[in-house]
Amino acid sequence: MAPTVTLLIQPLPSGEVGADLDATFREVDASAPALRVGELSTQRGDGIFETIGVVDGHAQEARAHLERLRNSARICELPEPNLPQWEAAIARAVGSLPATGEYALKLVLSRGVEHGPAPTAWLHASAAADFTAAREHGIRVVTLDRGYARGTAERAPWLLLGAKTLSYAVNMAALREAKRRGADDTIFVTSDGYVMEGPTSSVIIRRGGVYATPAPSGAILHGTTQQSLFEHVEAAGGRTEYRDIAVEELTTADAAWLVSSVRLAAGITDVDGTSVPYDADETRELNAYLLSPRD
Amino acid sequence: MAPTVTLLIQPLPSGEVGADLDATFREVDASAPALRVGELSTQRGDGIFETIGVVDGHAQEARAHLERLRNSARICELPEPNLPQWEAAIARAVGSLPATGEYALKLVLSRGVEHGPAPTAWLHASAAADFTAAREHGIRVVTLDRGYARGTAERAPWLLLGAKTLSYAVNMAALREAKRRGADDTIFVTSDGYVMEGPTSSVIIRRGGVYATPAPSGAILHGTTQQSLFEHVEAAGGRTEYRDIAVEELTTADAAWLVSSVRLAAGITDVDGTSVPYDADETRELNAYLLSPRD
Repeated sequence: MAPTVTLLIQPLPSGEVGADLDATFREVDASAPALRVGELSTQRGDGIFETIGVVDGHAQEARAHLERLRNSARICELPEPNLPQWEAAIARAVGSLPATGEYALKLVLSRGVEHGPAPTAWLHASAAADFTAAREHGIRVVTLDRGYARGTAERAPWLLLGAKTLSYAVNMAALREAKRRGADDTIFVTSDGYVMEGPTSSVIIRRGGVYATPAPSGAILHGTTQQSLFEHVEAAGGRTEYRDIAVEELTTADAAWLVSSVRLAAGITDVDGTSVPYDADETRELNAYLLSPRD
Repeated sequence: MAPTVTLLIQPLPSGEVGADLDATFREVDASAPALRVGELSTQRGDGIFETIGVVDGHAQEARAHLERLRNSARICELPEPNLPQWEAAIARAVGSLPATGEYALKLVLSRGVEHGPAPTAWLHASAAADFTAAREHGIRVVTLDRGYARGTAERAPWLLLGAKTLSYAVNMAALREAKRRGADDTIFVTSDGYVMEGPTSSVIIRRGGVYATPAPSGAILHGTTQQSLFEHVEAAGGRTEYRDIAVEELTTADAAWLVSSVRLAAGITDVDGTSVPYDADETRELNAYLLSPRD
């Protein structure tokens, strides 16, 4: 049994500093009850989260994840998270993990117990699944309609598109639908035919030497791994762009990936049953970068 | 402090009978931790629920709620709930509540702990909020775009429209938006302008003596309170229909209500800032019916 670490966190208001942060954490056994049934996270999926990859004792891109947690809190009208407190919690959890291996570190900020006075928060670290096959041999994807036309997020902010909320039942249903169709993963598309994102990942395509991802219009999450890869590509002199990507481009691109914090870069081999170009060498290089310590 | 009852339930497979059902329930203190952080209900809003009204010791329309729980489980590919076990849990909870007063009884069926062997389930009864003002004086509503065009549910079943899932962050955000606009509640409409439902209620309009509600097309929940009211209207010789309702009809109807299991019938007085006809007498009669014992 691989080790896990679970910390319950008593959330401090943003800006409150100088407290004994360790006193706001309580380590608990993951197999023991820790949450009340009145938790709005569980009753209504009413909260936000981030999943950070930990590689050989280093939390990857922790700051970018925390900035996105803050952005999700703003969209969901949750109290602004105290980032130094979260950083301390991450450091404490990572310090309790083995010095080698890959782990997934999940941060949750819930609206708290119904009629309760304050949000609740916790962090849970567990061994990452073995994604060797997806990284080295790629994945088959299906495209699934997310039901929204392009421009919906701007028109209807109450749909919380762009926030990483705990209300992920649809994302999980889309992954089940992919498996049913003999694929490994899903790419959500708008009802008018534009690429959005995977249920737990971002989409990157390469076409004529340029790396592109859908413009972060408010309808999709701004992917931390995607941003890190774009910086990597640009540092090597490559070109990147944010733009609308029609679904047809998934099959005409020179290469395409789903990228995420724990599985990292998975090259797409097959879209809706059609084989597409798969670049094994470049995927290997991207994953070597993603497995190196990144801040 | 009004009494609460919380029962953790060890879910039996559907069809398993003859067990000592009481041995599958464990009463816990609602203020004590009962759920693990690995719960998929809390991590992903991955589970389903029902809220049953309890009036003076009687669980209202329990069977209709349990049938809908079963339907939600089917849509979400959760194990079929064992309805006799849930009925026994409801009976036990209701038996522990005071013989008078209104309570809300929440049933939750979660996909369970991540990588765990089985779903988890619980039931939580608490005192209903005081909805006297909404019942007697009505509510102001705003219409909010749900982002989906009519027909989306049929095309994209992975969106889980028609299932009562725990992924309710959008429903809660829509209620916050209503408050921000000075209203009490929301009516979701399709992106092409048809009435759907409230975040936690069904819509009924009366027009020319006929009671209408949106056709249960798969995009909306089939409301248990709405069905009960339609039976009541029909029993008295009234006419009811399921049909598409254009958003404009909310302001031209002779009367309109949001109906739900605990607040019951709330007459609409105002739609997007425009006053609409409000029938105080009929609303009083509908609530008298809804407060009588119903099965």
